[in-house]
Amino acid sequence: MEFTVQQVAGLLNGEIEGDSRRIIKGLAKIQEATATDIVFLANMLYEPYAYTTKAAAIIVNKDFVPKKQINATLIRVDDAYVAFSQLLNEYQKLMQTTSKKVGIEQPCYISPSAQLGSDIYVGAFAYIGQGVKIGNGVKVYPQVHIGDNTVIGDNTILYPGVKIYHNCTIGKNCTIHAGAVIGSDGFGFAPQADGTYIAVPQVGSVIIEDNVDIGANTVIDRATMGETIIHSGVKLDNLIQVAHNVRIGKNTVIASQTGISGSTEIGENCMIAGQVGFAGHIKVANRTNIGAQAGVMKSIKEENQVLVGSPVIDVKDYMKSFAIFKKLPEMAKRLDAIEKIVTQKPQQ
Amino acid sequence: MEFTVQQVAGLLNGEIEGDSRRIIKGLAKIQEATATDIVFLANMLYEPYAYTTKAAAIIVNKDFVPKKQINATLIRVDDAYVAFSQLLNEYQKLMQTTSKKVGIEQPCYISPSAQLGSDIYVGAFAYIGQGVKIGNGVKVYPQVHIGDNTVIGDNTILYPGVKIYHNCTIGKNCTIHAGAVIGSDGFGFAPQADGTYIAVPQVGSVIIEDNVDIGANTVIDRATMGETIIHSGVKLDNLIQVAHNVRIGKNTVIASQTGISGSTEIGENCMIAGQVGFAGHIKVANRTNIGAQAGVMKSIKEENQVLVGSPVIDVKDYMKSFAIFKKLPEMAKRLDAIEKIVTQKPQQ
Amino acid sequence: MEFTVQQVAGLLNGEIEGDSRRIIKGLAKIQEATATDIVFLANMLYEPYAYTTKAAAIIVNKDFVPKKQINATLIRVDDAYVAFSQLLNEYQKLMQTTSKKVGIEQPCYISPSAQLGSDIYVGAFAYIGQGVKIGNGVKVYPQVHIGDNTVIGDNTILYPGVKIYHNCTIGKNCTIHAGAVIGSDGFGFAPQADGTYIAVPQVGSVIIEDNVDIGANTVIDRATMGETIIHSGVKLDNLIQVAHNVRIGKNTVIASQTGISGSTEIGENCMIAGQVGFAGHIKVANRTNIGAQAGVMKSIKEENQVLVGSPVIDVKDYMKSFAIFKKLPEMAKRLDAIEKIVTQKPQQ
Repeated sequence: MEFTVQQVAGLLNGEIEGDSRRIIKGLAKIQEATATDIVFLANMLYEPYAYTTKAAAIIVNKDFVPKKQINATLIRVDDAYVAFSQLLNEYQKLMQTTSKKVGIEQPCYISPSAQLGSDIYVGAFAYIGQGVKIGNGVKVYPQVHIGDNTVIGDNTILYPGVKIYHNCTIGKNCTIHAGAVIGSDGFGFAPQADGTYIAVPQVGSVIIEDNVDIGANTVIDRATMGETIIHSGVKLDNLIQVAHNVRIGKNTVIASQTGISGSTEIGENCMIAGQVGFAGHIKVANRTNIGAQAGVMKSIKEENQVLVGSPVIDVKDYMKSFAIFKKLPEMAKRLDAIEKIVTQKPQQ
Repeated sequence: MEFTVQQVAGLLNGEIEGDSRRIIKGLAKIQEATATDIVFLANMLYEPYAYTTKAAAIIVNKDFVPKKQINATLIRVDDAYVAFSQLLNEYQKLMQTTSKKVGIEQPCYISPSAQLGSDIYVGAFAYIGQGVKIGNGVKVYPQVHIGDNTVIGDNTILYPGVKIYHNCTIGKNCTIHAGAVIGSDGFGFAPQADGTYIAVPQVGSVIIEDNVDIGANTVIDRATMGETIIHSGVKLDNLIQVAHNVRIGKNTVIASQTGISGSTEIGENCMIAGQVGFAGHIKVANRTNIGAQAGVMKSIKEENQVLVGSPVIDVKDYMKSFAIFKKLPEMAKRLDAIEKIVTQKPQQ
Repeated sequence: MEFTVQQVAGLLNGEIEGDSRRIIKGLAKIQEATATDIVFLANMLYEPYAYTTKAAAIIVNKDFVPKKQINATLIRVDDAYVAFSQLLNEYQKLMQTTSKKVGIEQPCYISPSAQLGSDIYVGAFAYIGQGVKIGNGVKVYPQVHIGDNTVIGDNTILYPGVKIYHNCTIGKNCTIHAGAVIGSDGFGFAPQADGTYIAVPQVGSVIIEDNVDIGANTVIDRATMGETIIHSGVKLDNLIQVAHNVRIGKNTVIASQTGISGSTEIGENCMIAGQVGFAGHIKVANRTNIGAQAGVMKSIKEENQVLVGSPVIDVKDYMKSFAIFKKLPEMAKRLDAIEKIVTQKPQQ
């Protein structure tokens, strides 16, 4: 695999600044590149590397203004991250031709009543239950479990060990990573007079729409009644908890280890960082942005807010308050001193 | 399936208020019901829906006093949530007759030295090790692993992909959800002079008593010596961490993503919210109630407390302090102003 | 199995204080021992039990000075925890002779192009992909998945249900617990103009060096490009998230449910407690010690710090500030009172 900067820029619809004849043999990170690599610069934290990288070429945003001399050829595009991602895609296609998974490996378990689409892959030790429907182009990796009457849409990928319970619906073009669990019982228990609990049957299900990505070991519980719904385009990272009857609006992105309690509704196009916790039975407005480790106890009604803290408050207010939190011991001393002066006054 | 309100009220021992002849065909949530559904109202957050729901009937608590007119027939019971849960149970029984799992699917792996009870289900690709004892009515779903010499009590359900290590004991009527791990090594490493660590062998085991529910992808480590013990009636949600030698008292309920460090003992009938962290080697009194994302660093000796924060303090004190935390920048300015006035006095 | 205190002390190179002829039949915790057990005392929280334990002998540190009379024989060693861990090791060796796993159980799936070392164990329903290399003495428990071209070093143990993706490298003498996932895609999505996201292909891999322990259901994502690297001697607890392109320095120990965001580098010999969160693209200095539930938003440049809080500050400063946080409502009242006095002055 060998291309010129000219060829790559053509593919990306980019403008060249510098030597267009340089040879590119690989993709790399800006801080680790060799002389035949192409790299990208999107996060300005990495700008210093632009002036020292050995890379043949750097993909940058159109409006990037270098502060020093750059040895690499620049390829200017609308969005450097998106353009580089396109290149990675091409690279992946080239690489995958050698190990494309197709066909049905043995032994696997496919119920006679299951319906299978065309061009599918079923790995060894995968389990496909009664009445399951598998769309075209689906990949079911080894040791996956698909419970009775569950439906898997076209071109969806279930990586090794994914466990899906009965009566769930997974859309098209979804990617579910290893160890994720879909459709486990919601956490509902009715307290009894003697202090014990009786499990509330969870007779609902889970609907995952199209183009949803779900991370490794993430869990999505089925609804008590009705459905837990993950709308189209949602991206969930690893080790996330989604409780019964939760709804996540389309194109919302949630980072690792966040937890969403029962019956809560997250809006569309939200960005939720890692280790955030949401209380149950609340609604979060569209385009809400929530910082890492925040605690969301109440509904968020206004759209487009940036919130942090536990319970959440506006990020600027939190940072100001936290700055003073660090000075509290000093403030307390000053208060003591002033109080002494002020309250001693009458005796003077 | 079709019943009258009269029939359902009879089943639940409830008092009817309104038309008892209405037809019920399904169960639903109060905000989503159609004209032939029965619903319940227990959480007063949902009371507004009582006045607008299309449901045929609403199950309510005996002491519920409507604020407006309600079109649905009311069925008054002692505990609306428990009563509705009973109905769900009946509904689930009716539904399950079509897909009750029994028998032994092939291929599975059952050691010749394992003892199997009657009326069990063993799914394909399940692994049952040497000397394992499986009680009557047990369901071992596909891809479950049961290590050597582990014992599973009567009527316990192990959902797909549950992994149990060797020498563990699981009680009767337990439900363990997909991907949960029981009996992995405790996290114990002895530091060496050169900065490396040597693993401390974990020769103990795990005992889970009767009627315990364990959520998907939750992990319970085996003891270094002796046992990690989950007492009867405990309910654990998804993605919880239970370290070596922990003990959890009976009927304690713990929500998702909470972590309990080594050798800590949680009392009976506690309610622990999500994402809470417990330090190691501490004891938590019976009936302690801990809020989401709290950090419990020391033992809690007094029973019946409601605690939040990290480290935990009384919930009312925390809320008062947090209210002022938000005003800290303003408070700091006021302190500056007063200090200026007070300390300038001498120069006047 | 029966030894004298004399024999055990000889094995541990310890000095005996008391009766050396006592019989030892088992190992136990100091608070639970019977008259033929040997126990250890390393954590001084447990010192009170030294004066009441029924144990035959206690392993203690050389410098331990009892405050009261002790009935048990003392064995003084350099490091009581390490010495006891040695004993546990011997005990485990004795016990394991009866159930040592060797050989290849059927059915399992081994690609014809895989290379297998000598003295290995492959459990039933394990999956070994194309071009995989398995070293000598490796144990692959049931239902493990090893993706194409992945390499497993000598004497490494993969417990039931471990899922490793393609092109990963696992070192020698590693232990990976049930349900852990290695090599899942990094969480990278490029935003599009219409609000949707396109997955950025993750073409990198994961390198895990020698002597690494990984807990149950922990997830380590593959790199976008290049490698996610876990250096030698690292110990990771359960349910930890390690994002794409993260590097963890050698001999660093991380407790359960901690999450590390993309491209962050953790130094060597760090100690990270549970439920900690690290932002992406930061560096943490060697020998950093971070308390439970902390949030690390910026790089930590100075070595040997002990930090807590979110965002992290020095532990002593945090504790002082938190002490005053609890008194904020009282402080606010005092400030009000003083302000009243001070600002009323002019009117007097």
